[in-house]
Amino acid sequence: MDNRPIGVFDSGVGGLTALKELRCLLPEENIIYFGDTARLPYGTRSRETLLKYIAQDIAFLRRYDCKLILAACGTVSTNITPELAQSAGVPFLGVLEPAVKAACAATKNGRIGVIATPSSIRTGAYQQAIANLQPSFQVTVKGCPLLVPLVENGFIQPDNEITEKVVRIYLDPVKEAGVDTLILGCTHFPLISKIIGRVMGSGTVLIDAGECLARQARRELEKRDAFGTGGNTSYFVTDSTEDFSQIASLFLEDSVGGDVKWVNIDSL
Amino acid sequence: MDNRPIGVFDSGVGGLTALKELRCLLPEENIIYFGDTARLPYGTRSRETLLKYIAQDIAFLRRYDCKLILAACGTVSTNITPELAQSAGVPFLGVLEPAVKAACAATKNGRIGVIATPSSIRTGAYQQAIANLQPSFQVTVKGCPLLVPLVENGFIQPDNEITEKVVRIYLDPVKEAGVDTLILGCTHFPLISKIIGRVMGSGTVLIDAGECLARQARRELEKRDAFGTGGNTSYFVTDSTEDFSQIASLFLEDSVGGDVKWVNIDSL
Repeated sequence: MDNRPIGVFDSGVGGLTALKELRCLLPEENIIYFGDTARLPYGTRSRETLLKYIAQDIAFLRRYDCKLILAACGTVSTNITPELAQSAGVPFLGVLEPAVKAACAATKNGRIGVIATPSSIRTGAYQQAIANLQPSFQVTVKGCPLLVPLVENGFIQPDNEITEKVVRIYLDPVKEAGVDTLILGCTHFPLISKIIGRVMGSGTVLIDAGECLARQARRELEKRDAFGTGGNTSYFVTDSTEDFSQIASLFLEDSVGGDVKWVNIDSL
Repeated sequence: MDNRPIGVFDSGVGGLTALKELRCLLPEENIIYFGDTARLPYGTRSRETLLKYIAQDIAFLRRYDCKLILAACGTVSTNITPELAQSAGVPFLGVLEPAVKAACAATKNGRIGVIATPSSIRTGAYQQAIANLQPSFQVTVKGCPLLVPLVENGFIQPDNEITEKVVRIYLDPVKEAGVDTLILGCTHFPLISKIIGRVMGSGTVLIDAGECLARQARRELEKRDAFGTGGNTSYFVTDSTEDFSQIASLFLEDSVGGDVKWVNIDSL
């Protein structure tokens, strides 16, 4: 039993899709969600800038005596260094490894596709992680910079023509590579999974990286016998709390259901 | 005669369209361009966050003994307070007033449209500035959050179907209002002016806010007999200098033609 909170952080709002899974799998846990909304998006930043932002995000969560820290952000999970992950001082999980394990287990033909932000893709982390597990697998990756703004601006209806056209541009080469499994390597993408699924066709298994992270977090607590009680979620954001609450309800498909507090990024 | 540089700043790269006009109108001037690329885009931030960033941007340019400071960014120009503009310590110009003056002079039917970022539009600054000049004019405004990411990701070809569809969604209500003059209130928009012009129809005059700013800057130097010589442009950015140089060439339709230096935002 461990009633300390789980700390979850993200560039802003994408991580809320992972939070939703987490609250569903672990409804009794207390959660601190930190979104760096004054500096989003992370997915088009350089590595140097990202490492600075990630260090500040982790330092912020350390103030709350968390039992586990989760990066609910594909860009953070692929760019973080082992040293930075260790700086959390408690077990740290990102979306990369859980998603890669799930994809390697799901594929039948050994061909895996990965879509993520450009900053994720250029690290080569997905290819490396899959090669570590299954060196013979073929991996096709594609950076999709426009999907994050499309999602954040509400272009998420399953029949949205514009988003479908953009998805086709990005996914056509991935489809041509004959993948049977596609990792949604950015926590924004589950919101358009119906469009992505339609473009890929019913033969492709979609791996939701945020959902895999939530399952991994549950296993981690189980292993350590560290489940808690309370079920409260508190939110901290670096830009307007009102704007966050509004967009968060889109991502959570529900109201935020918890306090939202503003954090001065200069204090990070 | 005044050989001090002109300071130009922007959230990142949009201001380069204004810089291009400035270099064309004032080829002999020395220019310091500052782009806050580690924290772009500005156009979806809250006012509180923007005011903090703007104060830091101006403080950075003040280090370079500028004779004139220009906000080549619609979001900055509409959100800035008079006190912050005064903190520049030298004449300060934004895109708002020059664009509004040009639009009021151009319209024949007294109906002006404005497209800009959501953070610009929600200030009401365009409506206010037009009402101050011409209280009887009818103003139709529209925040266009997706146009900035479309432009930054290179969806700018005049026949780009996706951008045209998005532009139509935003502009249909503006068109229905019967405007004969449309202010492009964000310095990213000139890069898709052909698409915007086609959607609006040939009867609509497009006002390029960055171009208006460059002309106003020339008038300001003329008035003060403060033209300089040298013709050098130096760039400072808060994220990767390489990424900036690459996207800058898209905006300038030329190579950056000057040094690009990195600035640590924590030092701002």
